[in-house]
Amino acid sequence: MADTVPHLKLTYEGARKMLAASVAKAEAMGVPQCIAIVDDGANLLAFARMDGAKFLSIDSAWRKAMSAASSRAATGGMAEGLDIRLAIATQGKLVNVKGGVPIVVDGKTIGAIGVGSGTGDQDLEVAKAGLAALAGAKTDF
Amino acid sequence: MADTVPHLKLTYEGARKMLAASVAKAEAMGVPQCIAIVDDGANLLAFARMDGAKFLSIDSAWRKAMSAASSRAATGGMAEGLDIRLAIATQGKLVNVKGGVPIVVDGKTIGAIGVGSGTGDQDLEVAKAGLAALAGAKTDF
Amino acid sequence: MADTVPHLKLTYEGARKMLAASVAKAEAMGVPQCIAIVDDGANLLAFARMDGAKFLSIDSAWRKAMSAASSRAATGGMAEGLDIRLAIATQGKLVNVKGGVPIVVDGKTIGAIGVGSGTGDQDLEVAKAGLAALAGAKTDF
Amino acid sequence: MADTVPHLKLTYEGARKMLAASVAKAEAMGVPQCIAIVDDGANLLAFARMDGAKFLSIDSAWRKAMSAASSRAATGGMAEGLDIRLAIATQGKLVNVKGGVPIVVDGKTIGAIGVGSGTGDQDLEVAKAGLAALAGAKTDF
Repeated sequence: MADTVPHLKLTYEGARKMLAASVAKAEAMGVPQCIAIVDDGANLLAFARMDGAKFLSIDSAWRKAMSAASSRAATGGMAEGLDIRLAIATQGKLVNVKGGVPIVVDGKTIGAIGVGSGTGDQDLEVAKAGLAALAGAKTDF
Repeated sequence: MADTVPHLKLTYEGARKMLAASVAKAEAMGVPQCIAIVDDGANLLAFARMDGAKFLSIDSAWRKAMSAASSRAATGGMAEGLDIRLAIATQGKLVNVKGGVPIVVDGKTIGAIGVGSGTGDQDLEVAKAGLAALAGAKTDF
Repeated sequence: MADTVPHLKLTYEGARKMLAASVAKAEAMGVPQCIAIVDDGANLLAFARMDGAKFLSIDSAWRKAMSAASSRAATGGMAEGLDIRLAIATQGKLVNVKGGVPIVVDGKTIGAIGVGSGTGDQDLEVAKAGLAALAGAKTDF
Repeated sequence: MADTVPHLKLTYEGARKMLAASVAKAEAMGVPQCIAIVDDGANLLAFARMDGAKFLSIDSAWRKAMSAASSRAATGGMAEGLDIRLAIATQGKLVNVKGGVPIVVDGKTIGAIGVGSGTGDQDLEVAKAGLAALAGAKTDF
């Protein structure tokens, strides 16, 4: 087995473009949001808190992004009960609430976007608008 | 009563052997895992995150091992409700989710192995494969 | 004395404009940076981690912004010894390292910008480039 | 500017090989060590605590690896005073003590190795033995 494998890295420019698209979508919906974009190691790349968004959603948006980057899946699908136990075990990093999606290009997870301050469905819609702005990113979540 | 009693100590070599067996089992199952082995004081001895395992499972695998070492029992059997209260009280160290088992030799708990990133049953199976690699270790969990 | 007083609030649009100016300055300098903009309550408004910036500077940039918002002064001027004691007392929120400046308009502190990943002087220069993009903001730090 | 750029990813197999080489070196030196290998986002990939190594070095070895991954440089070269301020600002993640080196292949930082429990020079020597086991990795630190 190989010691290293080819991978892709999301640039700040890519993250900025995604963030702008998510902000535009949230504006069009009339729902102010906190939007966080992380790399595949869960470190923050870009963030926006729109006017009127809840400031506690800074944390939840970021952690939704962490959760989606870790599981390589949209947040919100974990079994009830298990999710709370793992949320505590990860000191709150695992958030099983809609609004986090992985950024997957060429089958590789290169980061994630997490959105919070609206309803779960609104958050997910804004996250997916970010994905749509990145050429080649998987969008069917 | 005696002031000191004979004990057994898991060596790094023993932990490494268990880790390799757990990794091999997870590979055979096609389920990438995070695997943590701790001593009887819950201090980390050996760890592996396989390609494709969730990075948030670094925390949960380690904490399952802590929980099993503390209780000297497999994780996942605590009463619902009580487990969450104790999880919060221990700042997330107690994790009542399957995948952690104590390492018991000659009736002495000398450490524990915790596995996370698959389902609870898969995690437990991989943990037990580690136990099976250690001569004399109790495996009926 | 009045029960309430007029205040000013930095919008996301204002923060975004400042962030873009700081990023452009850092690019021109050839020094990739982490840049955080907070409101007057130290809550994050906008953030960028440029390609090549240190990810541990996510924390330090944000905390420099927190420190500048709290003290309404540039970071880095506190007495040695006192600064470490207060850093510990605030769980690391107070950072007495150059690179954080308050955003002051019409004599009112409405937020702060914190920059980290270069030298202290480079960080400060990039922070001030952000201030210069906001009409009416005090820039002599 | 591109939204994504080609990158490399360290596999568990690569990390395991490095860990084994570092353990062998530490054994040959007669200095038991804690050895942590992280990916480029500072998430743990592989870990060993050898018999006789200090258990508090679990934390310091891991954090040396985090620091080297973040700065893309060997740990221990930061100015005195600044290092303590940034250590507090990053909640202890930044450790300015010898023994952490980045894993750099083809000019790309793909992770880091951190070693602790010996002297700083011994720790660095054991970390470099790990680098030498990875084909193409930069070793002149």
